[in-house]
Amino acid sequence: MHQDLFSFREQQIFYRILFNRRDMRHFDPGGSVKPAALRRILQAAHAAPSVGLMQPWRFIHIQDYKIRKKLAKVVAKERKKTARALGKKKEAFLRLKVEGIMESAELLAIIQAPDDGTIFGRLSQRNTMSLLSCACAVENLWLAARAENLGFGWVSIFKPKKVRKILHCPKKAQPLGLLCLGPVKAFYKKPMLEEENWRQGKRLDQIVRINSYAKD
Amino acid sequence: MHQDLFSFREQQIFYRILFNRRDMRHFDPGGSVKPAALRRILQAAHAAPSVGLMQPWRFIHIQDYKIRKKLAKVVAKERKKTARALGKKKEAFLRLKVEGIMESAELLAIIQAPDDGTIFGRLSQRNTMSLLSCACAVENLWLAARAENLGFGWVSIFKPKKVRKILHCPKKAQPLGLLCLGPVKAFYKKPMLEEENWRQGKRLDQIVRINSYAKD
Repeated sequence: MHQDLFSFREQQIFYRILFNRRDMRHFDPGGSVKPAALRRILQAAHAAPSVGLMQPWRFIHIQDYKIRKKLAKVVAKERKKTARALGKKKEAFLRLKVEGIMESAELLAIIQAPDDGTIFGRLSQRNTMSLLSCACAVENLWLAARAENLGFGWVSIFKPKKVRKILHCPKKAQPLGLLCLGPVKAFYKKPMLEEENWRQGKRLDQIVRINSYAKD
Repeated sequence: MHQDLFSFREQQIFYRILFNRRDMRHFDPGGSVKPAALRRILQAAHAAPSVGLMQPWRFIHIQDYKIRKKLAKVVAKERKKTARALGKKKEAFLRLKVEGIMESAELLAIIQAPDDGTIFGRLSQRNTMSLLSCACAVENLWLAARAENLGFGWVSIFKPKKVRKILHCPKKAQPLGLLCLGPVKAFYKKPMLEEENWRQGKRLDQIVRINSYAKD
């Protein structure tokens, strides 16, 4: 399976999966995820790159309904705080569905493990590099979920301290996301925040520059 | 192209690409990347998820050879400092090839844009969430490069301040990586750090837990 060269047709399949990935908040409440699919998805996450091969990602699979409810409560509280912080956009925000924690078939948490002391690639920006590795694992997971025709949503509306406590994480472990995974009735055609006219994405030429940063 | 459901065969192609992605440091110095392929790869990066749709990633395409040489110098300096910091592993580290900046066909930099004030999903862990979005874009880029049969290596051995200066970034923009992209003679069969016996990766059961973090 190594040294594979991919054909034009294979590349197109890959891009179709990648461009159809969405941050889902609407799930099919009656759905389920086959254990074999969940395992493949987690293996995809674990195949992510990491600085100095430190693999700082830890995934907690929430199987206990009571824990899920506790996490949903933490998110609900932060959502209200977010609404207040948004001022004029408060009402529009409250109309958005921002998470599917109680409806998704499965719930995972991504936790950054306490620093293991890796130096390779981390002499500068020590914590940042470990965080970036964790995100690569989530993105792998996300794309794999889409390939498996499952919805996935990354929820970051929570106080990390509270999630840490509920999941019995060590003090130096950092909760980075609550990850909703499961069947959906339909995938959004474009990012939900665009569909809902919350915000529009940038064009490619706004984020790619030549030789120097220039201006935003 | 929306609402696609992917078949078992398409999933297998996706996983083959994903599991064959490697952090490459050895490039084919005579190689080149077709502009259309580079554009597809950058579009894949830009299709990444981001908190509150803030899209904080900026990619600088280094086309000026003099700038490339300056960046290589910054990395060479940090490599020496890393070697010193590694103590007993110094000699082993110095035998590793840690970057391909002067040999890769193309060189990009990923820069985190200055904070645009997005609140959605960022009330807690404000900067962290923006960093994680940047990493998702790089992982998309990386997988797309692999689908295009191109090597890709993320170099994080540099002082951000120096890269910021060379690329004329605003003070509050954060350089996160120098990204080598181009044809390779062969992809590593497993992570280069494993092949070189620098370190072995963890098993899946070491990074997945049920209901609580438990211990590392």
